[in-house]
Amino acid sequence: MKDKVNIGVIGTGRMGSVHTRNLIRRIPQANVVAVCDIRLEVAQAVADELGIPRVIRDYHELLADDRVEAVVIAASTNTHAFMMIDAARAGKHIFCEKPLALDLTSIDEALAAVQQAGVKLQVGFQRRFDTNFQRVHERIASGQIGDLCILRITSRDPEPPPMSYVQVSGGLFLDMMIHDFDMARFQMGDVEEVYAAGNVLVAPEIGQAGDVDTAVVTLRFKNGAMGVIDNCRKAVYGYDQRLEVLGSNGAAWVENEMADTIVQADHQGFHSATLPHFFMQRYAEAYVSEMREFVECVAGDKTPPVTGRDGRLAVVLGYAAHKSRQENRPVRLSEIAAV
Amino acid sequence: MKDKVNIGVIGTGRMGSVHTRNLIRRIPQANVVAVCDIRLEVAQAVADELGIPRVIRDYHELLADDRVEAVVIAASTNTHAFMMIDAARAGKHIFCEKPLALDLTSIDEALAAVQQAGVKLQVGFQRRFDTNFQRVHERIASGQIGDLCILRITSRDPEPPPMSYVQVSGGLFLDMMIHDFDMARFQMGDVEEVYAAGNVLVAPEIGQAGDVDTAVVTLRFKNGAMGVIDNCRKAVYGYDQRLEVLGSNGAAWVENEMADTIVQADHQGFHSATLPHFFMQRYAEAYVSEMREFVECVAGDKTPPVTGRDGRLAVVLGYAAHKSRQENRPVRLSEIAAV
Amino acid sequence: MKDKVNIGVIGTGRMGSVHTRNLIRRIPQANVVAVCDIRLEVAQAVADELGIPRVIRDYHELLADDRVEAVVIAASTNTHAFMMIDAARAGKHIFCEKPLALDLTSIDEALAAVQQAGVKLQVGFQRRFDTNFQRVHERIASGQIGDLCILRITSRDPEPPPMSYVQVSGGLFLDMMIHDFDMARFQMGDVEEVYAAGNVLVAPEIGQAGDVDTAVVTLRFKNGAMGVIDNCRKAVYGYDQRLEVLGSNGAAWVENEMADTIVQADHQGFHSATLPHFFMQRYAEAYVSEMREFVECVAGDKTPPVTGRDGRLAVVLGYAAHKSRQENRPVRLSEIAAV
Amino acid sequence: MKDKVNIGVIGTGRMGSVHTRNLIRRIPQANVVAVCDIRLEVAQAVADELGIPRVIRDYHELLADDRVEAVVIAASTNTHAFMMIDAARAGKHIFCEKPLALDLTSIDEALAAVQQAGVKLQVGFQRRFDTNFQRVHERIASGQIGDLCILRITSRDPEPPPMSYVQVSGGLFLDMMIHDFDMARFQMGDVEEVYAAGNVLVAPEIGQAGDVDTAVVTLRFKNGAMGVIDNCRKAVYGYDQRLEVLGSNGAAWVENEMADTIVQADHQGFHSATLPHFFMQRYAEAYVSEMREFVECVAGDKTPPVTGRDGRLAVVLGYAAHKSRQENRPVRLSEIAAV
Repeated sequence: MKDKVNIGVIGTGRMGSVHTRNLIRRIPQANVVAVCDIRLEVAQAVADELGIPRVIRDYHELLADDRVEAVVIAASTNTHAFMMIDAARAGKHIFCEKPLALDLTSIDEALAAVQQAGVKLQVGFQRRFDTNFQRVHERIASGQIGDLCILRITSRDPEPPPMSYVQVSGGLFLDMMIHDFDMARFQMGDVEEVYAAGNVLVAPEIGQAGDVDTAVVTLRFKNGAMGVIDNCRKAVYGYDQRLEVLGSNGAAWVENEMADTIVQADHQGFHSATLPHFFMQRYAEAYVSEMREFVECVAGDKTPPVTGRDGRLAVVLGYAAHKSRQENRPVRLSEIAAV
Repeated sequence: MKDKVNIGVIGTGRMGSVHTRNLIRRIPQANVVAVCDIRLEVAQAVADELGIPRVIRDYHELLADDRVEAVVIAASTNTHAFMMIDAARAGKHIFCEKPLALDLTSIDEALAAVQQAGVKLQVGFQRRFDTNFQRVHERIASGQIGDLCILRITSRDPEPPPMSYVQVSGGLFLDMMIHDFDMARFQMGDVEEVYAAGNVLVAPEIGQAGDVDTAVVTLRFKNGAMGVIDNCRKAVYGYDQRLEVLGSNGAAWVENEMADTIVQADHQGFHSATLPHFFMQRYAEAYVSEMREFVECVAGDKTPPVTGRDGRLAVVLGYAAHKSRQENRPVRLSEIAAV
Repeated sequence: MKDKVNIGVIGTGRMGSVHTRNLIRRIPQANVVAVCDIRLEVAQAVADELGIPRVIRDYHELLADDRVEAVVIAASTNTHAFMMIDAARAGKHIFCEKPLALDLTSIDEALAAVQQAGVKLQVGFQRRFDTNFQRVHERIASGQIGDLCILRITSRDPEPPPMSYVQVSGGLFLDMMIHDFDMARFQMGDVEEVYAAGNVLVAPEIGQAGDVDTAVVTLRFKNGAMGVIDNCRKAVYGYDQRLEVLGSNGAAWVENEMADTIVQADHQGFHSATLPHFFMQRYAEAYVSEMREFVECVAGDKTPPVTGRDGRLAVVLGYAAHKSRQENRPVRLSEIAAV
Repeated sequence: MKDKVNIGVIGTGRMGSVHTRNLIRRIPQANVVAVCDIRLEVAQAVADELGIPRVIRDYHELLADDRVEAVVIAASTNTHAFMMIDAARAGKHIFCEKPLALDLTSIDEALAAVQQAGVKLQVGFQRRFDTNFQRVHERIASGQIGDLCILRITSRDPEPPPMSYVQVSGGLFLDMMIHDFDMARFQMGDVEEVYAAGNVLVAPEIGQAGDVDTAVVTLRFKNGAMGVIDNCRKAVYGYDQRLEVLGSNGAAWVENEMADTIVQADHQGFHSATLPHFFMQRYAEAYVSEMREFVECVAGDKTPPVTGRDGRLAVVLGYAAHKSRQENRPVRLSEIAAV
């Protein structure tokens, strides 16, 4: 394995700056040689904070830098696909944020380019690297849970996102539930069919934008097991992230991580704090772990554990759920795309 | 309110004997004047144990007893409807075990007889009387939870029932999930449509009998909220009974009642006991409360809180779920019966 | 084992009426032939409620009834010792409420009479029959916890008792902590020395009566382990009853039994109910179990598990704690009495 | 407030390297200009890892560096006092690890030097900076808990330390319980008297070295409240850190932070993981916070929240507990030193 991996980061907004900080402060094996953002001043601020030598506006320049072995693509979603293609052609290994793209054609072209170039690709589903979800995955794999029966995922935001985000996000199924679709596949295996119920219950402005704010989606897995995901854009008690698997040998739950471990009692009862409200706080360590994994994959013989196929199938699931809700009928993934 | 209510119990098997014991030992206002069972020796044993003066084989004799003001019908399901009709015509108030019947025509005839006779009818959905579920209901009613968004019910048996029971029970949706359907209506209001996924995953013999052992059912409520119920015939860790409601002001969970409050720690971690395995243990107090409520309704001006309509709609929901699973599409309740 | 045990109850106040109700409603093997109270109308009310044939004012008459095999002594504390002596001489087996007496001389005389008469004696430390505490005891005995190191007992009342009770109760150490002393011995074995700190912090009127309302007591067990008991007369969140044992192989906790299993979440956090406020509710089943055990001991070959020695040592511990607090020094039990 | 604070670290062993890493990676306001260790290669390794420009063997050279405004003293305990004196005389602000020293004379001399020089001093009781303990402190201060009654602290190590450490540590009361003594004062205020029971129960070799491995200590606070601390060198389920405060308005508990939030259920019951085994993991964020606080105090007008008096009183409490155990009697702090 190589001692150091030279990395360039494309897009230094919210996620890109988190990845850059993690690469520099937490992953000694990573060497960030340049950061790139079309908003040059944004990239410059990150570079200044972290002591990064080179700042670039045009990502093509980054790809032309021979020292760069791998890129982290964290620019806006609509750029992911063509950046992946260019990076692959430049022979750079790629970490790409989710979703790979909002249209499947672009995704397929990008994945073809990656395959042709033989570069490594990891998709940014950080929840797979959360200690809790990972351990449940291992216990399923080890047979401790037995034959899988039921999966339940609850994933709720503390409050609706700004409408500016809702309008470009692709909607609840492609923006929010996409993480849960990937988690469902991570724990249970491939999905055959989905049935989605959704409604506007907590944020009328989201309804006016043509989206739903609350949804309950049933999954039928290829292995016969069933699953259900519920999402809501508003849970006033915090960012609610739970998962449960029932199998023939028992069950495993991932409970929420609490903001503190204090229980206070008074004449009204027992009280504890709300959940952390921010996903970056909840998954802070998972973001580090996914990046460490990527760096190790680039440095050595390992294959990235979250593949292009994973990235693509999560989008396919999003479209299937969307179609299911619109037509109010179960939709097979094969109706959306070859899977 | 009257001091005492004279009651006759029809059917002294498992549920009937529980009700009789509760009436005599726990509800001073109740006066059990006779017990009745076509297996006379079964009724006799209960009468001997509890000091009940009269034992009857034919329930018509019980109905002819002028002292009897109210009857508890706990005979086998296929007798419920005609016994209700006879009891109503005899002017007796009626507590009837669930399900009212397995066919809707019989239910409709029975409910018509009850209405015509003007007698009171309470249906045996005891979970509504569980302290936990009741308090959640009250908090929803009081507005503490806000506008309702998502209901989640988990209801799992420790192990599959004997096949002899499976064959006459009406199947998972009418025998097991019927309680959850009623609970869903109790908490959230009326249902418009259901979508049911079901499979044979833990008990192949149940599949051979044409039923499923695991199911995930989505509910669309008339108020726009959504719900999901999951059932499994086998949860090795015990009788799992949980409920969760999310609304615009927050959420409420009913967690499982544990077998004890011991946590034991060793070098492998922290351990607590399995859940109680038997529904009669979990709902022991609820059975007392429902019977107390019925006696108070007969004695005074109160109307039974679990109505014939409730009993009928739970069956309608069971048939809708059954049809949904068979045809793999969402089914509106109005497809099954006028609702 | 005999089919039925004929029992007379002496003292039908709060505890006596609970025992009588349990004997009649919950323990088929028990046959309550008479109840006795110097307040005849109190005994009469209990007899009427439960259908007991004989009501007596003077307990000597009860002891003269040849049918009576065993007595339950639940009259006021200052009568326990001479009633035990009379009952023993009359050849009756004895269940006696705690404390056996407030002076050790009386206790010693009563225990001598019991021994001489060869009757069975069980002392009313009901907590030993609580499922939780019993299971911890069994796990200690089985070696699961390993060599014992530390015991922690927390025992707090929701609010101070009426002053009329405080004045005759013998004080916090003999009235309230006596249960914890017995529990400590039950779990860990005999005690050699105690050190008690106590103060008046929540109920000044208790201080004016010469008692403390809060205390922390260190125990040194003969096996080298150490323990600590804390008591407070006022815990606004309810009747707090916890226990913890640490050993070389791990630990076991008995957590509080909650009033319900509901967790409610809102924008301020997660909330659950206060603890039950009444000891009779918390230990309802333990009171049944201790009485069932006594009846079985009288009926058969079993020896009562809570002995006269246990009753005596709990009082010795109370006096040792009292002396320790007054003199602010550790006090060996042997300073109080031969042990 | 100044932008940057120039800091030198003296002692780069286990604690010193943690502090240095935190200063550099987590506290932008800190500027580590040099590290110092008599084992020069140890300091060099830390400097290499973190890019620190200067490495020093003799701390006098560090103190002679005019750029250095503050020092972090994390060398071995027996050097703390004279290093503090030298640092104070050199006009450097001081963060000193606990304990300040093992003899009170040295502590008093060091504190006198600090006072004379007018430099700021913060003592390394990092637990005060743990979010949980801090929030309980704030709630006590705000009056939410009411008048204080009982404090309970449980603090247990997963396994005994190496004997080499036991022999120089000063013993359980000065090495391990010192943190709990400080926590007790932090939450409840000053202590008047202690009573300590201790024994050798889990690690005979510790007994052979003249120390105890298990202890239960009662504290009497000046405000009349009482407290109890229990320590054990061996809790096989992990590093156990709990605290509980009871007051007239209610109670607050700090529960353990779990290793993950998974609950797994099988036919034996419910299981969760052991606690983290390492104090550096449990208090990782507290170590950052204490150092951030120190840097802010040096940079601005703030006074360090953990004072020399706090450092001294924790040692006085350790000696009082030691004496109490040896003489088996309560010991007032004034017997040990003027307080």
